[in-house]
Amino acid sequence: MKFSIKRSIFLNQLSNVTRAIPGKATIPILTGVKLELTNDQLTLIGSDSEISIESIISVNDDLNELEIEKTGSVVLPARLFNEIIRKLPTNKLTIEVNDQYTATITSGQATFNVIGVAGDAYPKLPTVETTNGISLPSTTFKQLINQTIFSASNQESRPILTGLHLINKGSFVSAIATDSHRLSKREMPFTNEVSETEFESITIPKKTMLELMRIAEDEQDLTMIISHQQVIFLLNDVTIYSRLLEGMYPDAERLIPTEYQSEIVVNSTEFLNAIDRASLMSREGSSNVVQMTIENGEVVLSVRGNELGKVAEVIETKKIEGKDIKISFNPEYMKDALKSFDGSDISLQMQSAVRPLLLQLDTPSEIENNRLLQLLTPIRTH
Amino acid sequence: MKFSIKRSIFLNQLSNVTRAIPGKATIPILTGVKLELTNDQLTLIGSDSEISIESIISVNDDLNELEIEKTGSVVLPARLFNEIIRKLPTNKLTIEVNDQYTATITSGQATFNVIGVAGDAYPKLPTVETTNGISLPSTTFKQLINQTIFSASNQESRPILTGLHLINKGSFVSAIATDSHRLSKREMPFTNEVSETEFESITIPKKTMLELMRIAEDEQDLTMIISHQQVIFLLNDVTIYSRLLEGMYPDAERLIPTEYQSEIVVNSTEFLNAIDRASLMSREGSSNVVQMTIENGEVVLSVRGNELGKVAEVIETKKIEGKDIKISFNPEYMKDALKSFDGSDISLQMQSAVRPLLLQLDTPSEIENNRLLQLLTPIRTH
Repeated sequence: MKFSIKRSIFLNQLSNVTRAIPGKATIPILTGVKLELTNDQLTLIGSDSEISIESIISVNDDLNELEIEKTGSVVLPARLFNEIIRKLPTNKLTIEVNDQYTATITSGQATFNVIGVAGDAYPKLPTVETTNGISLPSTTFKQLINQTIFSASNQESRPILTGLHLINKGSFVSAIATDSHRLSKREMPFTNEVSETEFESITIPKKTMLELMRIAEDEQDLTMIISHQQVIFLLNDVTIYSRLLEGMYPDAERLIPTEYQSEIVVNSTEFLNAIDRASLMSREGSSNVVQMTIENGEVVLSVRGNELGKVAEVIETKKIEGKDIKISFNPEYMKDALKSFDGSDISLQMQSAVRPLLLQLDTPSEIENNRLLQLLTPIRTH
Repeated sequence: MKFSIKRSIFLNQLSNVTRAIPGKATIPILTGVKLELTNDQLTLIGSDSEISIESIISVNDDLNELEIEKTGSVVLPARLFNEIIRKLPTNKLTIEVNDQYTATITSGQATFNVIGVAGDAYPKLPTVETTNGISLPSTTFKQLINQTIFSASNQESRPILTGLHLINKGSFVSAIATDSHRLSKREMPFTNEVSETEFESITIPKKTMLELMRIAEDEQDLTMIISHQQVIFLLNDVTIYSRLLEGMYPDAERLIPTEYQSEIVVNSTEFLNAIDRASLMSREGSSNVVQMTIENGEVVLSVRGNELGKVAEVIETKKIEGKDIKISFNPEYMKDALKSFDGSDISLQMQSAVRPLLLQLDTPSEIENNRLLQLLTPIRTH
């Protein structure tokens, strides 16, 4: 195996696949990156056995400056290889692998010898048995992930809750994440109608969603394929393979309240900053709780006194309606929820001090089935 | 005690003094920041008992927007107080302290109550018994610290080596730092002649030097006062008090070689990048060693093979003179030394594989007594 290539192009794709590669692995070969060279293209693969990322550099794109001298494949230690490529002295590099799978990397006057193993020893990627993909709008889908994924659980005690749940509604998708203390839901229209045979509902691991959000560019072709407990995301040069989470996702829709006793409208950024200030005091206390009091036409955020002090702030509101109420919540969860609205004015609806708080855009999206909502369970205080 | 002030000004000075304040302290009051308000000024003080930083905000500078309503003093929990000030909603704040030393901080609609203690309970700063200060050029002195302090030891087994040693030479100062594996020396002319009665030599703790480097601005008035095992640095609004390190500093001058067998001249940045590449492989090995070979009119950096591979690179040189040599060194120490030359061409002089390597500017400074040198002990290999 021997080829030369433009370093910046190679480094970019190498970085994409390296993100999937674990620092330590029970299967040692997975700490390596696989390079596979055919007459047409160089393929890079990284995997942690749950998620695999494959990146293709074509010989046909002159910008890549890919010159293939001898085909073959090899697996090289990913972290070290990445750092070497990053620090090479020129923007051109040559890699030659000998029969003992030692790679000689040259660039300018620098020569590295890195000991690798045979490419055949690397696990095979799942084969895709369908070409029936669902086309997704990459910009909106990245936004959807960003607005929901923080509510997915980090606890392995209920694995199904560590993923993002997608429900196929034909003309749109409904995405839900919840850790049972809070819930995020975002709807997004499909680019084309999607039939039920393609999928009813799936749950995708959090890590896969975060990697997709990182790798996908705005306004890029993005296709999702579902096949045998696997989901595959096709981008221009990069393919992400991931297992799906197994198990029944709880019926979250029924948790979303349909009526309320009190409503306020605030700017999400101003409210976020006020919560941030109040949480300075709550973090110092024994329980991280901020109280919101709606009374006499005024909304006050406060933290009860602890050994260091206390805080109170009157919030600027655009609307206050309904009954007076005192309700307490975890300020970190509230901050996450508020950030998803990206500065817009939002409506907070409450039923009682013990029923979930509902956050939505005050002015709903003009696009149909494009709704975002955040649900927060209050904390009971005495 | 009651005053109002411009938040950005207050925050800036509060950040300066907070850097001295430890997160935990055996004397609990030292985790607090002291505020002292007279009719003329607001003084902020932070201390870890070894270094104290005092900052003064004058009522006479209109930019401060300092309005004093009632004088007094208080000590408030530093970390929390700092975060509160940083997150207040407007650029104006008012602080009022009641008889129980609870501070009420208001800004816009936000009101914080922070429980403090009496200002009298805070340790007194050392009093300065001399007004006989030494004027230092702040830009050059900051550079001097930056070019030497990395060689100071981090090991408390020989406390004197954890500081920067300054020797008074009358018209110039000689600064030395060494951890016994490497040595940095920088000379710098005094602004005025300094008499021996002011000081012969002192050793200042590393932390003090780093704080001074951070707080002092370029082209700023900087005065050093030495008094009773204390050194005091006076800046415009900020004063840094620090104890001096006690004990005999080793006679480092005699370690500096006066002759050599081999010399090369290289660009410090290019050489740094090559060492950085080579160290990728040495870090993976059992000992972190890079070898330099001067042979047949060529300089080669290399790392012997380990279980992951090896590396070799021919270095571009501007001059090669003297005997062939093989010499090995710690690449991290070499990188620190090279960075101090900031991209200039440098001369490396060697006597043998076991005697210290000397690094100096290839073209010496045009200013007299303005010399920089770095000394590195080689590593013996077999």
